[in-house]
Amino acid sequence: MRFQQFAAAVLVLGGTAMTATSDEGMWLLNDPPRDRLREKYGFDLTADWLERAMLASVRVNSGGSGGFASPDGLVVTNHHVAADAVQKLSKPGRDLYADGFYAPTRDAELKCPDVELNVLREIADVTAEVNAAVKPDMKPAEAFAARRAVMAKIEKESLDKTGLRSDVVTLYNGGLYHLYRYKKYTDVRLVFAPEQAAAGFGGDVDNFEYPRFGLDVAFFRAYENGEPARTPHFFKWSETGPAENDLVFVTGHPGTTNRLETLAKLKHRRDVTLPYTLYRLRTLEAALTQYGEQGPEHHRQATTDHHRVANARKAFSGQLQGLLNPAVLAQKFADEQRLIARFSPAVPGPPPETWPLLPPWQTIADAQVKLRGFEKEYGLLETGHAFFSDLFAIARHCARMADELPKKSSDRLREYRDSNLDSLKFQLFSPAPIYPGLERAKLTASLTFLAENLGGEHPTVKLVLNGKSPAARADELIAGTRLADVAERKRLVEGGKAAVDASTDPLVLLARAVDAEARRLRKRYEEEVEEPERQAYAEIAKLRFEAFGRTVAPDATFTLRLAYGTVKGYEVGGEKLPFHTTFGGAFGRSAGQGGKEPFDLPKRWLDGKDKLDLNTPYNFVSTADTIGGNSGSPVLNRAGELVGVNFDRNRHGLVRNFVYTDVQARHIAVHSRAVLEALRKLYAAGPLVKELTGQ
Amino acid sequence: MRFQQFAAAVLVLGGTAMTATSDEGMWLLNDPPRDRLREKYGFDLTADWLERAMLASVRVNSGGSGGFASPDGLVVTNHHVAADAVQKLSKPGRDLYADGFYAPTRDAELKCPDVELNVLREIADVTAEVNAAVKPDMKPAEAFAARRAVMAKIEKESLDKTGLRSDVVTLYNGGLYHLYRYKKYTDVRLVFAPEQAAAGFGGDVDNFEYPRFGLDVAFFRAYENGEPARTPHFFKWSETGPAENDLVFVTGHPGTTNRLETLAKLKHRRDVTLPYTLYRLRTLEAALTQYGEQGPEHHRQATTDHHRVANARKAFSGQLQGLLNPAVLAQKFADEQRLIARFSPAVPGPPPETWPLLPPWQTIADAQVKLRGFEKEYGLLETGHAFFSDLFAIARHCARMADELPKKSSDRLREYRDSNLDSLKFQLFSPAPIYPGLERAKLTASLTFLAENLGGEHPTVKLVLNGKSPAARADELIAGTRLADVAERKRLVEGGKAAVDASTDPLVLLARAVDAEARRLRKRYEEEVEEPERQAYAEIAKLRFEAFGRTVAPDATFTLRLAYGTVKGYEVGGEKLPFHTTFGGAFGRSAGQGGKEPFDLPKRWLDGKDKLDLNTPYNFVSTADTIGGNSGSPVLNRAGELVGVNFDRNRHGLVRNFVYTDVQARHIAVHSRAVLEALRKLYAAGPLVKELTGQ
Repeated sequence: MRFQQFAAAVLVLGGTAMTATSDEGMWLLNDPPRDRLREKYGFDLTADWLERAMLASVRVNSGGSGGFASPDGLVVTNHHVAADAVQKLSKPGRDLYADGFYAPTRDAELKCPDVELNVLREIADVTAEVNAAVKPDMKPAEAFAARRAVMAKIEKESLDKTGLRSDVVTLYNGGLYHLYRYKKYTDVRLVFAPEQAAAGFGGDVDNFEYPRFGLDVAFFRAYENGEPARTPHFFKWSETGPAENDLVFVTGHPGTTNRLETLAKLKHRRDVTLPYTLYRLRTLEAALTQYGEQGPEHHRQATTDHHRVANARKAFSGQLQGLLNPAVLAQKFADEQRLIARFSPAVPGPPPETWPLLPPWQTIADAQVKLRGFEKEYGLLETGHAFFSDLFAIARHCARMADELPKKSSDRLREYRDSNLDSLKFQLFSPAPIYPGLERAKLTASLTFLAENLGGEHPTVKLVLNGKSPAARADELIAGTRLADVAERKRLVEGGKAAVDASTDPLVLLARAVDAEARRLRKRYEEEVEEPERQAYAEIAKLRFEAFGRTVAPDATFTLRLAYGTVKGYEVGGEKLPFHTTFGGAFGRSAGQGGKEPFDLPKRWLDGKDKLDLNTPYNFVSTADTIGGNSGSPVLNRAGELVGVNFDRNRHGLVRNFVYTDVQARHIAVHSRAVLEALRKLYAAGPLVKELTGQ
Repeated sequence: MRFQQFAAAVLVLGGTAMTATSDEGMWLLNDPPRDRLREKYGFDLTADWLERAMLASVRVNSGGSGGFASPDGLVVTNHHVAADAVQKLSKPGRDLYADGFYAPTRDAELKCPDVELNVLREIADVTAEVNAAVKPDMKPAEAFAARRAVMAKIEKESLDKTGLRSDVVTLYNGGLYHLYRYKKYTDVRLVFAPEQAAAGFGGDVDNFEYPRFGLDVAFFRAYENGEPARTPHFFKWSETGPAENDLVFVTGHPGTTNRLETLAKLKHRRDVTLPYTLYRLRTLEAALTQYGEQGPEHHRQATTDHHRVANARKAFSGQLQGLLNPAVLAQKFADEQRLIARFSPAVPGPPPETWPLLPPWQTIADAQVKLRGFEKEYGLLETGHAFFSDLFAIARHCARMADELPKKSSDRLREYRDSNLDSLKFQLFSPAPIYPGLERAKLTASLTFLAENLGGEHPTVKLVLNGKSPAARADELIAGTRLADVAERKRLVEGGKAAVDASTDPLVLLARAVDAEARRLRKRYEEEVEEPERQAYAEIAKLRFEAFGRTVAPDATFTLRLAYGTVKGYEVGGEKLPFHTTFGGAFGRSAGQGGKEPFDLPKRWLDGKDKLDLNTPYNFVSTADTIGGNSGSPVLNRAGELVGVNFDRNRHGLVRNFVYTDVQARHIAVHSRAVLEALRKLYAAGPLVKELTGQ
């Protein structure tokens, strides 16, 4: 039956993975799919084309992508990527998130409190240097420390030499190490954001669905020394956008995929990690919904957190459905067996599912067994799931910096290494508003979640709750902390260990109280899971390279990648969905839903409907390979012009974390023409249009 | 420190439990608190008063309370108790739930598809007979079966003799057994329901909160032989309602309390049962929210399920916060020790928390350890948490009836005993609409929840999902079943085992496929948990009676009880909350929230505001002891007149499952004057007012 299951997988998923004609792959810019593009599309990927793709692509450090759209530092991204900044620029009575924003002049552009943009400048392979630091006879803890140290050293030397943000990136889960050097912008200003109702039209209902009707774009401008940044590498905005069957490219920063993970790891995700994650996300979503229902200002405060959590919930729900579909795991099993078969002794007779695992696969399977024993505690205490609170995160950083900064950079917890300190402090000292009521609601929900998971007698729960119910404890912590004040954060960080030791701030005390246990769990994770997995995956990567060369791209790591595909619609249940929607369709969908939230169009749209060309293409789809993190990614044509802004994938694409398919799975982008039409006719944004198009 | 914790408990909770002056207690009608009422309130509880309280109180079998309000079968209850019926009488384009309903004449009253009302007629103590059937040397399984058999026999004999619905009720968790005989009404018609926005004003935000502004009332009429039922025992509707500090009574059917449970049981609830329950409820709530967001008709379909689940989520959240408050468990510990101390050998020296548990307490503690090992599976498979679907519930009944009905009544699973069969069939053959889309969404959510809890490799998960993802499996099951058709259900039940065996209905096949395992888990629960607990609680009850007599009421069992208390406000954070709110306050609260859902008042209210006396008392609070199930309970004055309709308790009362307190905890009722004022001025319901007041 195994073969039939696999056949079913081919049917359901397209089974195109790793075939020459598949559009699979989030490719490294220094190892691009030149041959595939030439063979399938007759496209010659030139050095110039690639250089612009790299230098004009932007990473929004909070978790998204974008691209330069003019030589004057103008950056296009998604509204939902800019949302956090838009929210932080809002306040009671001035709701830019709901009402939108446009700065017709440079003077009117609003400085964002804590947006950092990164632009990749160089890539260097440092695999040999990293691997040389790890000796074969090292215990996992030593190996982990040695690798962390050499990575910090490489980064520090690069930073000192170039002044560029320098990150060693782990590829193929440990198969390769590349040094990425970024130019960094921290003076980032808001130029344009539409109303949330236009950007996020359809809300949670239409999220991860198609047909779709969202103006999910926003524009920032990067500044240097108080002036708009000079950005000679930018993507020219296409007035026409893509046609059906066009080849398009997506450049951006896909966050995480799990395609090279072993079957044992995926089963662990299915049975342990994802259920826990969904339990957590539903808990947080419920708390945020309930907070927002208390009134319009509550709603305003909670809205971006709420969207983020709901989006994650829907994405992870899709992942779980995918892993619970036996066809998906059958395909993973077949892929794995194909590789294992090349290196296994020929075992005639017994079917492949009975073969013993080769050592690296067995190592990863063993690590999951260990992880199961402490994964919840690790997530709750060290990852911070028990403390869903900006103020707690601040308290922990203050407390930990007092311990970490006196150490050598290479010995610190990785987030405190020298090469990361500026970015960290930029976030930590952000003047963005923090709402005590919202913090209380979030902390109540997460402290309750802690107790639900570990039980009321667990020493950590007792320590954290300190003799109170979760709700009463959250009230006390948020009422007592002074960390909403940036000056207090600076005082603690600058005062170092003495200041932190003397602090009676209840959140600082809490962060310190749980620190020993949190660090113990982190160490355990590093030694029992992370390091063994990394070594095993490095071996598997070696086998894979031997067998198939670099025909498979590494899993996503929130670093710059190039994907490509064809603009085309697809069929669902016999119905053909077109490759693009139109403005007219948006008005139709809204009317069909009685104009009710989340299908309410902004007043500006209703009033301006007659001015719009309703046949303007609005959103379109292509087969290019994307995942979360690609939000805001430029979609480019053969000429390297920007024809769209990627903002989502459809529900059939939710399984892309594990397997690529193009039968129905599509990414979804805002059409470049739609942006111009809306800016011209609805938002009276002449200067912005002129900057984009020259007219 | 133990003593201080207890002192804290006294402070926080009032610590009034079991003192002579406390208003604690949901009292048996055949064992009422005469002495307490005389001592504290100088009130003489007469036999006439009690008789009317019993014969005019109504149980709404789906889970609520009510009372006769005229001699012609008119029943007042809560809108949220009637909601299920109101929803089932609605359809696309005719939304009685949203728009309200009033029948000015008998002809216009709408017959509800499946409402059953019960009116208690007689109580008999059958403890001796039940206990005599259980021999000391029986194994748990035998004891369980013997008790089930004798209860079924007593019920059947009573039914045959009196024609009345006859239930043996377990009191004090096994300390007493009483036979309750009910008159049953199954022809129940809807007379009046306000708009949901008026009844449930404030939605989830204001649920379990005070001040409150809800017209949470509805009127049914019981019919017999096609005529309004003659109900000479009814509660006269008070034109004035209660004054501050009035003594009031609440008659009704509180569902479940856990006050007599041992500390070990409560800790198990805190650490295992409640976290699982909240995980489940949040999962279902999210699914229902998401379904309802898809459009107005989706919203209409999902709304009552959604309210029910959200209400449960908020109630259980409050319970968990209560059990995580160490003061609550300290009070339970002190109560338990007080009882244990009377029967423990004097152990000088060691503090009470180190004493060994006496046998019955130890038995209950041991049962929790066992329960922990299979509670999830039991809940998922036998209780049906994996199958949140009306159609699955129908399929299971059809399948099980084929197996059970051929057996002797006393040998059947308890829900299929002869004395319950009519009520069961009344529900099973209900013509109420079932919406396939909603069923799919609910089943997808609960099948996913099953997989999340047991993992993808669990044999039951594989069996249930049958090679599909949960979403695909739910689609297939709901698309294939024919059980939405009542005739098909009747065909299966009447056709018995042969019809069920021949059925290829996918839901019937699923119900049959999981039946062996579900029954195995039920048996395990009965033998390892239910029976040992029951015997242990019976022993504890005996000890308690010896020590304190009947000074403590039994835990709630969804049977008729009498509570009493004082109408009075309370303080929160220095603010005094009045004992009642007003209509004017409702308009103020709505305006303060921008008139937005769930604070939107119906058009009728906005248009009719000028006609209303805005000073009319709207909702009021008292200290009487209530819990879920008391919804719709008549609130009576000394004269036995109806002065209010209970519909909720405040958040301070959420802990009442475990401990009674009256410091801040209150139940909340609609004021009898408010009902009359609204019926007269807004709903033009002259005939209904005349029936209630005679004018």
